[in-house]
Amino acid sequence: MKDSPAIRKTITDNTVDKDILAYTVGEDPVLDLELAVWDCMGTAAHVTMLSEMKVSPPIVTKEEAKKVKAELANIVRLSREGKFEIRQDDQDVHMAVERMLTEKLGDLGKKIHTGRSRNDQVAVDVRLHMRDQMFGMWGEMLDLFDALVKFGKRHNLVPMVGRTHLQPAMPSSVGVWATGHAEMLSAQLPVLLAALEMNSTSPLGSAAGYGVPLPLDRERSAKLLGFDGTIHNVFGASMARGEDEAALVSSCAQTMCVLSRLAEDMILFSMPEFGYFRLPREYCTGSSIMPQKFNPDVLELVRGKTAHAIGLLTASLTLLHAMPGGYNRDLQDCKLLYMKAVDTTRTTLRIMAKVVKGMTIDEAKLRAGFTPGVFATDVALRMVAQGKPWREAYHEVRDHLEMLKDEDPDAAVMAKNHEGTTNGLDYARYAAFSASSRKTLADKMRSARRALRNLIGE
Amino acid sequence: MKDSPAIRKTITDNTVDKDILAYTVGEDPVLDLELAVWDCMGTAAHVTMLSEMKVSPPIVTKEEAKKVKAELANIVRLSREGKFEIRQDDQDVHMAVERMLTEKLGDLGKKIHTGRSRNDQVAVDVRLHMRDQMFGMWGEMLDLFDALVKFGKRHNLVPMVGRTHLQPAMPSSVGVWATGHAEMLSAQLPVLLAALEMNSTSPLGSAAGYGVPLPLDRERSAKLLGFDGTIHNVFGASMARGEDEAALVSSCAQTMCVLSRLAEDMILFSMPEFGYFRLPREYCTGSSIMPQKFNPDVLELVRGKTAHAIGLLTASLTLLHAMPGGYNRDLQDCKLLYMKAVDTTRTTLRIMAKVVKGMTIDEAKLRAGFTPGVFATDVALRMVAQGKPWREAYHEVRDHLEMLKDEDPDAAVMAKNHEGTTNGLDYARYAAFSASSRKTLADKMRSARRALRNLIGE
Amino acid sequence: MKDSPAIRKTITDNTVDKDILAYTVGEDPVLDLELAVWDCMGTAAHVTMLSEMKVSPPIVTKEEAKKVKAELANIVRLSREGKFEIRQDDQDVHMAVERMLTEKLGDLGKKIHTGRSRNDQVAVDVRLHMRDQMFGMWGEMLDLFDALVKFGKRHNLVPMVGRTHLQPAMPSSVGVWATGHAEMLSAQLPVLLAALEMNSTSPLGSAAGYGVPLPLDRERSAKLLGFDGTIHNVFGASMARGEDEAALVSSCAQTMCVLSRLAEDMILFSMPEFGYFRLPREYCTGSSIMPQKFNPDVLELVRGKTAHAIGLLTASLTLLHAMPGGYNRDLQDCKLLYMKAVDTTRTTLRIMAKVVKGMTIDEAKLRAGFTPGVFATDVALRMVAQGKPWREAYHEVRDHLEMLKDEDPDAAVMAKNHEGTTNGLDYARYAAFSASSRKTLADKMRSARRALRNLIGE
Amino acid sequence: MKDSPAIRKTITDNTVDKDILAYTVGEDPVLDLELAVWDCMGTAAHVTMLSEMKVSPPIVTKEEAKKVKAELANIVRLSREGKFEIRQDDQDVHMAVERMLTEKLGDLGKKIHTGRSRNDQVAVDVRLHMRDQMFGMWGEMLDLFDALVKFGKRHNLVPMVGRTHLQPAMPSSVGVWATGHAEMLSAQLPVLLAALEMNSTSPLGSAAGYGVPLPLDRERSAKLLGFDGTIHNVFGASMARGEDEAALVSSCAQTMCVLSRLAEDMILFSMPEFGYFRLPREYCTGSSIMPQKFNPDVLELVRGKTAHAIGLLTASLTLLHAMPGGYNRDLQDCKLLYMKAVDTTRTTLRIMAKVVKGMTIDEAKLRAGFTPGVFATDVALRMVAQGKPWREAYHEVRDHLEMLKDEDPDAAVMAKNHEGTTNGLDYARYAAFSASSRKTLADKMRSARRALRNLIGE
Repeated sequence: MKDSPAIRKTITDNTVDKDILAYTVGEDPVLDLELAVWDCMGTAAHVTMLSEMKVSPPIVTKEEAKKVKAELANIVRLSREGKFEIRQDDQDVHMAVERMLTEKLGDLGKKIHTGRSRNDQVAVDVRLHMRDQMFGMWGEMLDLFDALVKFGKRHNLVPMVGRTHLQPAMPSSVGVWATGHAEMLSAQLPVLLAALEMNSTSPLGSAAGYGVPLPLDRERSAKLLGFDGTIHNVFGASMARGEDEAALVSSCAQTMCVLSRLAEDMILFSMPEFGYFRLPREYCTGSSIMPQKFNPDVLELVRGKTAHAIGLLTASLTLLHAMPGGYNRDLQDCKLLYMKAVDTTRTTLRIMAKVVKGMTIDEAKLRAGFTPGVFATDVALRMVAQGKPWREAYHEVRDHLEMLKDEDPDAAVMAKNHEGTTNGLDYARYAAFSASSRKTLADKMRSARRALRNLIGE
Repeated sequence: MKDSPAIRKTITDNTVDKDILAYTVGEDPVLDLELAVWDCMGTAAHVTMLSEMKVSPPIVTKEEAKKVKAELANIVRLSREGKFEIRQDDQDVHMAVERMLTEKLGDLGKKIHTGRSRNDQVAVDVRLHMRDQMFGMWGEMLDLFDALVKFGKRHNLVPMVGRTHLQPAMPSSVGVWATGHAEMLSAQLPVLLAALEMNSTSPLGSAAGYGVPLPLDRERSAKLLGFDGTIHNVFGASMARGEDEAALVSSCAQTMCVLSRLAEDMILFSMPEFGYFRLPREYCTGSSIMPQKFNPDVLELVRGKTAHAIGLLTASLTLLHAMPGGYNRDLQDCKLLYMKAVDTTRTTLRIMAKVVKGMTIDEAKLRAGFTPGVFATDVALRMVAQGKPWREAYHEVRDHLEMLKDEDPDAAVMAKNHEGTTNGLDYARYAAFSASSRKTLADKMRSARRALRNLIGE
Repeated sequence: MKDSPAIRKTITDNTVDKDILAYTVGEDPVLDLELAVWDCMGTAAHVTMLSEMKVSPPIVTKEEAKKVKAELANIVRLSREGKFEIRQDDQDVHMAVERMLTEKLGDLGKKIHTGRSRNDQVAVDVRLHMRDQMFGMWGEMLDLFDALVKFGKRHNLVPMVGRTHLQPAMPSSVGVWATGHAEMLSAQLPVLLAALEMNSTSPLGSAAGYGVPLPLDRERSAKLLGFDGTIHNVFGASMARGEDEAALVSSCAQTMCVLSRLAEDMILFSMPEFGYFRLPREYCTGSSIMPQKFNPDVLELVRGKTAHAIGLLTASLTLLHAMPGGYNRDLQDCKLLYMKAVDTTRTTLRIMAKVVKGMTIDEAKLRAGFTPGVFATDVALRMVAQGKPWREAYHEVRDHLEMLKDEDPDAAVMAKNHEGTTNGLDYARYAAFSASSRKTLADKMRSARRALRNLIGE
Repeated sequence: MKDSPAIRKTITDNTVDKDILAYTVGEDPVLDLELAVWDCMGTAAHVTMLSEMKVSPPIVTKEEAKKVKAELANIVRLSREGKFEIRQDDQDVHMAVERMLTEKLGDLGKKIHTGRSRNDQVAVDVRLHMRDQMFGMWGEMLDLFDALVKFGKRHNLVPMVGRTHLQPAMPSSVGVWATGHAEMLSAQLPVLLAALEMNSTSPLGSAAGYGVPLPLDRERSAKLLGFDGTIHNVFGASMARGEDEAALVSSCAQTMCVLSRLAEDMILFSMPEFGYFRLPREYCTGSSIMPQKFNPDVLELVRGKTAHAIGLLTASLTLLHAMPGGYNRDLQDCKLLYMKAVDTTRTTLRIMAKVVKGMTIDEAKLRAGFTPGVFATDVALRMVAQGKPWREAYHEVRDHLEMLKDEDPDAAVMAKNHEGTTNGLDYARYAAFSASSRKTLADKMRSARRALRNLIGE
């Protein structure tokens, strides 16, 4: 099969220069540490399936499969303890695992590679790793959602100027602001779930993209790993790499855009000129000499990381642009791109949840933001509701702005009570959404874990 | 409300210079023609809801609502006949529809705008238009899927060299090639459906993003338009613009990447040096002097349009980067971006389906591509299946390559019969997938159309 | 030659469907109107060179060349008067010009195409058009530079809070703010000039990228068009398309980023909470009912267009990604991309110059922005200058912030006088830069125009 | 000043959580190792300038400045020997250098920071580092240029089919192919030089972007560091970060696009179906079982890294999109982006030079690519040169294609001899370009090194 140890050696031997080596290996020795557990799982599923395959003589006996899986369980444990290492000679996680197996099991360690290729392996590892990451990201999206809803609920009817074009526009509330951002975040969940769905089929058994003349049972290995089924077509399975990662990176970039809007609002409204929000002291950097200065560094970095995530998406898609069918080495770079994207997004989600949880408000400053003009539309509409034509109401307000000067922010906030506005927010609806989504997530995680536990006994 | 006709006039009057006007109006007068029907629908729903609203006196009576809807039905008809026009003075579709209503109905034409803003209107129009476009795109994805599957089925067991790194690697088949691309396309459907889901809630009734002091029934207008429900939070509704469009553009860009890989394969394998595929003569450009020359222009343009789609996605996301909450004018540009993206993607899907349908193969050239090395892995694995350790099999083949020279492509194609490989493709599965997806699509379209028919009687 | 009229007809005849036609023609019929003048110029140079070529019999006589050029001068005039049209049958500007020539000159109209291909033509047209656009953009960059410098000079020593992380940080001035943005804009000129330099060589005479067996004098036609020389290699000349456009789009995107930062500052500091700047009333949109509301729409659109420009750059580069050598049809799309990018950037430059020219300041609000903490660093440094160690000065200020309360913004602005700070701006330097750059531009424009005037007598 | 050690401690102390810390520090501890030498240089220039500043008492005496510079020279040496380290506590290179100075020099180590901020420091470090990188990249571009020209010269007149749309089109040569790519690479130099020019002015002395009330001599420190002058405006100096990096990343992305086209050609034409080129065995990966398989991994990775570079550019520009003026923390991420981009591009340049140097050709296969149709245009043009109208020549060739069957590739290559075509390449011109560009580069490098040697005596 391609990229076998023998060949790899020709690449790593001393005739190959530093640049070429660095170029082909890339950041794999570091990135692949994340894949070690999943590589073991993929191998365990493959060897189980091989041992059940109806060929005579068996390629791997059930006894042998058991030994291999016991050893894989060891490696998983080492990896969980941070003791797994990819040596210079290994170059990647697959070779490291194979080396460890061979040290313990001799030729059996190599036999298990029958009917499988590196392409197969990395495709499975990456899908299992992505599934794990997406579960994590899903939960963290809900955590931030909950934090925002809680913040909104706590300050629900506190008046806050609603803006369009950044200009003061109409009466609004802290509740509307916070749950509006929460709802926009929740709107991103279907995109993540689409990536999860695309990722829910197993590529295993496609070999180098063209199958093998052996009676592999691809449905079996798929089930063993907790996948919903297979990517049926083997050539398709080899091309799914890249496409699958791009869907996840796309979900990350879109989610980051939502977070950058939230961060921007928090940066703006915590400027002393507004003073609506006070960010948690411990998440700001200050200046030893300017006591008034609390720089919202993490929020600014959210904007920066959003730019980064958009760049990672551009790269992920451009990588696929006009790539010929089948495996091509450019696909190796997908790994870096999705790992950075999902790590950045998840970290940002966690950080934003912390900042939101620690954020306080200044009610006086929030109310002080209400200049008379903010009430104009409401007052005109009040007249309309009393039967005055809109055009007359409009002229009356415009020509008598002084009538707005006694308007009260709190009254305005109370007066709007249709669905979803200041006095019409349904917090039960938000709670129900979150609970239901968390339940679905827990079910999926449980089912994935059960499959892996059955497979490797951990 | 903002951006009212009066204000617009101050923008369009002769004191405003050409650049500013062009800048703010952009391509709206052209793009908005696509929205005319949907603007009427949104208005019909709003006016119906207004007429049912429990205020006294009623803002709009049921009788008045009926008149307005009759007139809207007229405008829809004009638009369907290509007779709707947006005049220089109108600037956008909303003003054009309002002008036409006012010409016929006088002040009633203006009253119906109560409790609604332009932001509201454009958000609804765009969502209805996007839904319509996504239904179309969904169907066109299935059309190309079917065309590829049919092509694969027709030539299912015809041998074709399987490649990795573009180098000949292993025996494969035309069936595997075609259905592999088909399956990768179908893998994109969840991404489109996520965009459709995100789009399935109604923003109507959010006014400028902060609601109004009137008892609007937002669920009611949502149902009237065939939405599944509302974007609950009014501020969220105003921010959903941009986010929603980006999800669709993202689906387009990802789908285009898949199509560009298919196009690249077709370009390569129709080069005379391969000659596997012959593209339909009528879709190629040639040269009057070089009779052998059939340039695959449309396929090259697929690559180019893919680049364009990626650029549109970059723009869609960058637009949102660090944008403050609430409506900001930058959001206007989302319209252009998603309209271009979806139009390009849909056209490409239709064109690819045509080209695939007309494409023929050259069996002789496909078989001629099989050099002995292509069989090496299969032969070694055959030995393994007979009990020889992989390492020994491997050495034997490597040292006796002459043993491969009599291998037969057709036999190799027949010999691989596990799931999803040359002799293991399950066409029934593909047919079932397509039929089931088409049924879901048809149901959704029917339900959307029924709502609109009930609303406006067309 | 490829894409000859005969072939085009086969594409446009009624057997070809709408989608394919729309796909291959794209927006050419509109975009190409901008190229008409330049297409005539390129043809005039080619025919002049042909008539001077030492072959016997001559392909075109000098007399014939004269006739052709007279006719081309007519077409140029028509185009300048807006009367040039590309008909449905023509599809692009080259065919339209050829049709017009042939109507008047019969077979001579076709002969002039000898030794040239459409690729050649479009490459020349685009380079001449880009040169023209870059001259325009250069001038407009200087116009905005001058407007900012003038604004800075007018309000030079007016105090304005200097910010980092958007938080008030140190005393600064309107002069520093305005000329800082001006200088950042001027820093973009080398990037534009690099694109201009890359564009300064002629591709003409490369035919379809492989030359012709005729003694073309490529240096001659290059000089006739005012190019500095040729792209020597013919294959290179065909590949320069795309690369050249990308350099211009890159300059546009980078410039737009600078403008978006300026626009963002103007949006922020014209919010009523700051009130530092008042945007010209006629460039804002307002609300008929909220008299306090002046929405900075054009500035928000600058942000949006910046996103668009970044997307166009992504597309321009992705288009080139992994494209095989020689002409490929994907390159057609470069035209759209650079035309949109340069048009957007130039319009934005002109609009920003207008807005800056009309912008006024509110000195009281600018001074009101100075909270005591803003002076902390200056005061501590004053102590340091008097010999106190930094650490002691720092503690003294930190522990006695009340000492800052009488600090005066104007005094602070005056007190900083090293190069480039509040009281150290050298306006003569800015004036000299602008004058010198304008002179270079004028020289280049004159020389280009002289060449074209000599060529075609206009 | 901001971000002082004291403050940093509050960030790093155990109350701050892992995510926040990781988020704000990012990859600085690794990336900053590249900046250590340059940080010492910037500090040496600042302290020299301080010691010459006309204030009484002096902030730093000349004697003290000398001591500091001696110590900085030590640190530079350590860094060059790979012994410089950034500790957990340091977080970044500036603190590490300050710690080392303070350990040796006590309070003097801190005094030198007077009148300077971290922003200042990192801006200078990055500019010096970028200059160094750009010098390296410039030289490597010329190396690959030379390798391609040499390859072309060696095989100058060897026939090679010229293609458009990837289809065989006209006779061309290996010389034209290789020098065409070389020339396209050289066309990228102005873009790099524009980035270098933008980078040639010193930001030092801008403090946090608003200067200081001390008589800093900014021209002096600029000259000491070998800059051509200063960024005059201090606020501009703080905003130049980001803009400057983006210009370099843009040059990298554009250059990578050119390299990806070269790589794509090499991948295609080394496929066995063409066999024109043989890539150096040691730069390919193979398969232990398929002896015919030489996978062009490094070339495929060039395509992938091009996608990555485009993504880095997208990120670099999106980062700047709508960022408010002055320093914002998002700018920190520019460092990562440009470092990755320039490293990738430089490595790719070096690798491509190696691959080109080792690449051989197969003349027989190159000639075998000439099918009769390739000669059609040449033959028709030959008739035209003999006086036959183009239309007649065209019909005659089209109707008598058999007349092309005896055409000779070598004769066709010889027959085209105008500038830049198969028999008209001017290698002296290429040699002169390379030599002249190398000389300019050497002069610039010498001058930069001389300044630094004078400054710190190394």
